[in-house]
Amino acid sequence: MNQLLVEPHELQDGRIDLDGPRAEHLLRVLRVEVGARVRAGVVDGGTGLAEVVAVEGARLTLSLETGPTPPRPRVDLILALPRPKVLGRLYAMLAQLGVDRVLLTHAAKVERFYFDAHQLAPEWRRVHLLEGLAQAKDTRLPRVTEHRSLTRLLTRELDPLVDRQAGPRLLAHPGGLRSVHAAASGQRPDARVLLAIGPEGGWTDDEHALFVTHGFEEVSLGARTLRTDTATIGLLCLVHDALGPALP
Amino acid sequence: MNQLLVEPHELQDGRIDLDGPRAEHLLRVLRVEVGARVRAGVVDGGTGLAEVVAVEGARLTLSLETGPTPPRPRVDLILALPRPKVLGRLYAMLAQLGVDRVLLTHAAKVERFYFDAHQLAPEWRRVHLLEGLAQAKDTRLPRVTEHRSLTRLLTRELDPLVDRQAGPRLLAHPGGLRSVHAAASGQRPDARVLLAIGPEGGWTDDEHALFVTHGFEEVSLGARTLRTDTATIGLLCLVHDALGPALP
Repeated sequence: MNQLLVEPHELQDGRIDLDGPRAEHLLRVLRVEVGARVRAGVVDGGTGLAEVVAVEGARLTLSLETGPTPPRPRVDLILALPRPKVLGRLYAMLAQLGVDRVLLTHAAKVERFYFDAHQLAPEWRRVHLLEGLAQAKDTRLPRVTEHRSLTRLLTRELDPLVDRQAGPRLLAHPGGLRSVHAAASGQRPDARVLLAIGPEGGWTDDEHALFVTHGFEEVSLGARTLRTDTATIGLLCLVHDALGPALP
Repeated sequence: MNQLLVEPHELQDGRIDLDGPRAEHLLRVLRVEVGARVRAGVVDGGTGLAEVVAVEGARLTLSLETGPTPPRPRVDLILALPRPKVLGRLYAMLAQLGVDRVLLTHAAKVERFYFDAHQLAPEWRRVHLLEGLAQAKDTRLPRVTEHRSLTRLLTRELDPLVDRQAGPRLLAHPGGLRSVHAAASGQRPDARVLLAIGPEGGWTDDEHALFVTHGFEEVSLGARTLRTDTATIGLLCLVHDALGPALP
């Protein structure tokens, strides 16, 4: 655990009362005692050093004064819903790398039954996202929404969620000529990137055309055919590297 | 299955006799019949289109004329042995992204018992590497070796395996100032990169100094603390993007 992450309601008057798995981890693995300090953060809030002020059996009390909230990640993601097992593995990685919005969408080559998987349950998802945030010492929980129709997403739902003027809209596509790194480089310091990643079988021609109509530019990650999780991590790292760190 | 991958001994006089899981996949999932063509490759050899020439129950015979062997990936990797579960997940991703040598090494913050994990058994490893190759339509099996001493690896074992003149040697390190993409850009078309990735707890000061002595330059993937698998995929994508495709 690189950072103890608590929910906003768990921090009351600068105090955190903790039991359960996080307390157990602090006591058994990190072997904290009264006076120990651990890096801590509040979900969607600030971070700081928490100090252990009391230990009572399996319960802990810590004091925490939080500093500013980490900046919002500069990337939003449209992701054709991957196989549930792959999606399950992706959450923690997305939170580690930093993504603001994750729009999970249907597409022609997405199986409908993927939407029924337990990996889409908000509680299940939250656990894995928090795990990734704690790893990366971030507090900004990616905001995940589900979209059952790509056409509706692009024509009606997208613009209110992701401002069209915020920065480049990039469509990852096998055979794309421009490297994603080049396309995301040289932006304004406050620019954001909206990145769309297709299903394993790719976007159909109609879907591709729809993206282009809505301002997306085709980009490539290279000649190799990657599994969705590998491609997603790689594309996010390239975009983050090209954009540079978020402004505070 | 993006590519049927066969061992060299399985291709005899342009014919492949197949049973077992690969035949089952072709027959049950891809529903091939006589006359069907599937993309195929020989491990560490050429690729081509294989044609189904006979089906007998659960057995298939295909004919295959292979073209040239794909180029050798331009990246070699020194990887502090990660937790076995993480290593197990990494193999297929490494093969997807393309790595020539993978040198798994001990380091101060690597647990010795990781070396006893079943994920290090050559047969186990091979299955997962082949899965990644088939996904990426490559045939170049990453060459994995284990090194029980980082000092011995750097002082004696490394130079015979990875030519010191081949290109930059990069040490991924939290707080590194230069981006890995910048450090791997602008190389000769035949240059290679040797990338060293540390354990979750990082390299010790002594280990860091030893790398520098052996020609490594410190690079960074950014400010966030990533799990080994996320970091490894991201770093590999950045290096590949900066280097560009391998020469045939």
